[in-house]
Amino acid sequence: MSDALIVRRDVSFLLFDWLDLGKHHDRATIDSVLDLSEKLAEQAFLPHYKGADVHEPQLKDGQVSIYPPIGGALREYANLGLFAAGFPEDIGGLALPSAACWASYAYFAAANIAIAGYAMLTVANARLIATFGSPNQIEQFAQPEIEGRWFGTMCLSEPQAGSSLADVRTRAEPDGSDDLGARYRLTGNKMWISGGDQDASENIVHLVLAKVPGADGSLPAGTEGLSLFIVPKTLPDGSRNDISVAGLNHKMGFRGTANCLLNFGEKDGAIGWLVGEPGRGLRQMFQMMNEARIGVGVGAAALAYRSYRLSVAYAGERLQGREIGTRTGDPIAIIRHPDVKRMLLSQKVYAEGALALCLLCASLVDNEADAEARELLALLTPVAKTWSSEYGLAANDLAIQIHGGYGYTRDFDVEQLWRDNRLNPIHEGTTGIQAIDLLGRKVLNDDGAGLASLEARIARTVGRTVGTDREVYAQQLVRLSGQIATCIEALRQHHAPLANATTFLSAFGHVVVALLWLEQANAASALEGEDAFAAGKRRACRFFYEYEVPRVDAWLAIVRSGTDVAGNAPLETFI
Amino acid sequence: MSDALIVRRDVSFLLFDWLDLGKHHDRATIDSVLDLSEKLAEQAFLPHYKGADVHEPQLKDGQVSIYPPIGGALREYANLGLFAAGFPEDIGGLALPSAACWASYAYFAAANIAIAGYAMLTVANARLIATFGSPNQIEQFAQPEIEGRWFGTMCLSEPQAGSSLADVRTRAEPDGSDDLGARYRLTGNKMWISGGDQDASENIVHLVLAKVPGADGSLPAGTEGLSLFIVPKTLPDGSRNDISVAGLNHKMGFRGTANCLLNFGEKDGAIGWLVGEPGRGLRQMFQMMNEARIGVGVGAAALAYRSYRLSVAYAGERLQGREIGTRTGDPIAIIRHPDVKRMLLSQKVYAEGALALCLLCASLVDNEADAEARELLALLTPVAKTWSSEYGLAANDLAIQIHGGYGYTRDFDVEQLWRDNRLNPIHEGTTGIQAIDLLGRKVLNDDGAGLASLEARIARTVGRTVGTDREVYAQQLVRLSGQIATCIEALRQHHAPLANATTFLSAFGHVVVALLWLEQANAASALEGEDAFAAGKRRACRFFYEYEVPRVDAWLAIVRSGTDVAGNAPLETFI
Repeated sequence: MSDALIVRRDVSFLLFDWLDLGKHHDRATIDSVLDLSEKLAEQAFLPHYKGADVHEPQLKDGQVSIYPPIGGALREYANLGLFAAGFPEDIGGLALPSAACWASYAYFAAANIAIAGYAMLTVANARLIATFGSPNQIEQFAQPEIEGRWFGTMCLSEPQAGSSLADVRTRAEPDGSDDLGARYRLTGNKMWISGGDQDASENIVHLVLAKVPGADGSLPAGTEGLSLFIVPKTLPDGSRNDISVAGLNHKMGFRGTANCLLNFGEKDGAIGWLVGEPGRGLRQMFQMMNEARIGVGVGAAALAYRSYRLSVAYAGERLQGREIGTRTGDPIAIIRHPDVKRMLLSQKVYAEGALALCLLCASLVDNEADAEARELLALLTPVAKTWSSEYGLAANDLAIQIHGGYGYTRDFDVEQLWRDNRLNPIHEGTTGIQAIDLLGRKVLNDDGAGLASLEARIARTVGRTVGTDREVYAQQLVRLSGQIATCIEALRQHHAPLANATTFLSAFGHVVVALLWLEQANAASALEGEDAFAAGKRRACRFFYEYEVPRVDAWLAIVRSGTDVAGNAPLETFI
Repeated sequence: MSDALIVRRDVSFLLFDWLDLGKHHDRATIDSVLDLSEKLAEQAFLPHYKGADVHEPQLKDGQVSIYPPIGGALREYANLGLFAAGFPEDIGGLALPSAACWASYAYFAAANIAIAGYAMLTVANARLIATFGSPNQIEQFAQPEIEGRWFGTMCLSEPQAGSSLADVRTRAEPDGSDDLGARYRLTGNKMWISGGDQDASENIVHLVLAKVPGADGSLPAGTEGLSLFIVPKTLPDGSRNDISVAGLNHKMGFRGTANCLLNFGEKDGAIGWLVGEPGRGLRQMFQMMNEARIGVGVGAAALAYRSYRLSVAYAGERLQGREIGTRTGDPIAIIRHPDVKRMLLSQKVYAEGALALCLLCASLVDNEADAEARELLALLTPVAKTWSSEYGLAANDLAIQIHGGYGYTRDFDVEQLWRDNRLNPIHEGTTGIQAIDLLGRKVLNDDGAGLASLEARIARTVGRTVGTDREVYAQQLVRLSGQIATCIEALRQHHAPLANATTFLSAFGHVVVALLWLEQANAASALEGEDAFAAGKRRACRFFYEYEVPRVDAWLAIVRSGTDVAGNAPLETFI
């Protein structure tokens, strides 16, 4: 077992020393799943990292074929029961807590995000059906996914409806009902469908957002008209459903994950079964979207983490230059140069910070019965998705820089990690969309419960620093938290409060991660015996407060000013 | 003529309205060169942008072949006399000022950086020979380059000597002399040689840094031992020199530019002629490096500029979503969304700001006889190279984001622009190297003449804002300039002043570009009639001061604090 992908002790530290997962769950079981995950990721996923990039999915005679080792890796993943890990025991699961499942997933994402993506989508798809579907639907569709025999997708976007789901045009016409529920015929085009077709699973379960036309044949406006349908590639009677692959998207990265334009209903209409009630589609889909957003965050953190580990290894071996002020003697490893250490510490706070943020969200999923946890989860989900994507990518960028010219070649993995991670600020809701979700839905249009739960957590964390050398950071955190609150009050008076939502998200995200670095430093200080690992966490915390936290004031100054220099810019500005 | 690559009026504005190039040069000549450049770039360079990426250079039987349209485009470039544009008339040049040459080059770099790179290196190579070479060397080697028949390279790095040229091991043994000067036999390996081999020019002129061994056969230590040699691929007698291509680097981007590992002297030693005196190699090469650093800056600015123009076009066409707070009606073009405008304005200040910075440096090259200009150029060269690379890349990143999922596919050019530009913070001296050059060589170890000339320029610019609505920005600029000075004084007392050199460069670069945006706003305000172009420049200035300038305080706080959290981090931090 190596620490090549993600430092195992860090995962244990986050799950057990920090999030205290052992309090309600059996640590030995979780440890053994993590052992298995690390081993399988290294042995079955990592060796195909470049292969999955080079051997892009192919479309031939209407069928997408993917690089065969991808299917092989996923079969091993299924054989170990990892698709089932987070599901209740009564439907074949292991009932592992969400935080443990995402920690396991992080190993696979670090090793090969394009393969791991199929598993992530399948699990989230099955969970949605398990939550909102009928018992027959669960047995028919979710069960084979939990076993890892069928894979799942989410079909939301259309060529003309990317971020704006209100504009979905896929139609679902009633077509009777059977033991799987109300049956519909779907017609429409779905774009950007990851895993939309492939030849690695026995069947594919598409979860499709569509609109049921009114009596006059017109589609209901807005997102309230969206309903959710289960539309399998192969129907229960073994015949092919009316779904065709209109094209493959040729991406810059993440290439092993087939991404398709799907045409539903070119002939008689694709058969789909309604999930739950009509008009509840978006609300239901939000469960899957929220899970996928955490999944994107974990994936981004994992890609960052691997590039950090590669950077540490390279910087420890590459000899170049001498100590500043020294001109003789042998060259030294570049890890000794202050600027390289700065880049490595940046990577460490980004990668480990993002993983911590996403695992915290996962632990909140496990405690959703608790109102404070539920509110905090809603508040932090857009942050986990965005912060991990943006700063994960920054860590990948630094990995190329540390590798120098070598990092720019395809002989090393860091360039691919950078390309792969560039998808993450886009899919499952762009950064701009997350910013509006955070500031609009979760902050301004909320009763304040989300912020209150965050403030309560900050107060608890700050309380644990009294009398320690971390008080100075606690003071900064309290100051910034107060500034965020002031800023929100100012925004409530503003006529266009969302105009600088993305900048608000930048500031808010950094404050959240500052909180989590303080929590990590607290947890590290509570460990018995101050070893190098604990000292590294404490130094990373200090680094975050000294190098990263000063940026928050700049962002907040912009938001607080209510500047309309961008929002009010006439279009001729860009002539 | 379109504005697809770089807005022509912007170039005219920068060269004539701002830098006042018409004062000493014939505007009509420059305009006609720019007309030709824009046209040729669009017709002969741009159509092969994807082709040059897909059809990578191939090595077969010791000869590198490149995508044939690259050679065709460069022959057209030569036919128009563009290799010669900046050279004195007595050696066949057009004697165009440097700023005009770089403005012309920017069109080609925007259209196809991988093709333009061959021209940039060839011109810089010829200029070095024209400056330091003997008349015979100039006639034999520089002349065919000025005609565009031969191409040139710079051979500095070796596998074990990237940033650290003191560790160069290539040996040059005396081998008599002839009418081309003192002749040597070279043996060694040169890495990362752009244009190191290709089949598009009749010959290749390598400029090679090597060391002449002492009497005991050992190589002199340090950079003082470096000498510069002209080592052609084909010798004047038509025979092949002893240079072989040991391998091609397979890059993430910039793929049309063949990048080679060259072995010199595997048989009898490659024949090379000494340029000037022995031991002056690095000093001579710095002329080419400084020119190439400006060239990298211009290239980075051009890639940013093109992605900005593509973003404006896409955002004007792509319909998605509605005005905030509106749920009905037709979707609007995304250029109307405040967050998209913010991204476009960021691109505008990055792309246009970088181009302005590089053209300013070019205009200083034209005035090197003036001490203040010379000092300012030395100070700003690392800034032009780095700021353009870092923020040019940021503009490319925003282009992908504005394009959404489409921007992540290879159906659009923005992903390639991002990949191509990622090289620029690495080659010709990494960001970290530029930071040490700026803070160590140009600021702390300087007599202060560079900073004094910058301060004088700031004072003049600020003076032009009195009584205008730009006084508020002038005040900020003065405040930050004072803080930079304070920071430098603090660094002089510090035991490890270079530990945060990169952060200093970040702050310093933003202050320089803030100055240039104020200068652009001044120049725009001086135009007759306030049109949309001028208003756009003024709004961009306001945007830079409201969104970008606040970051400077955060960087300066880090540098001023003298924090050693990174520099003093023990290596176990990264276990």
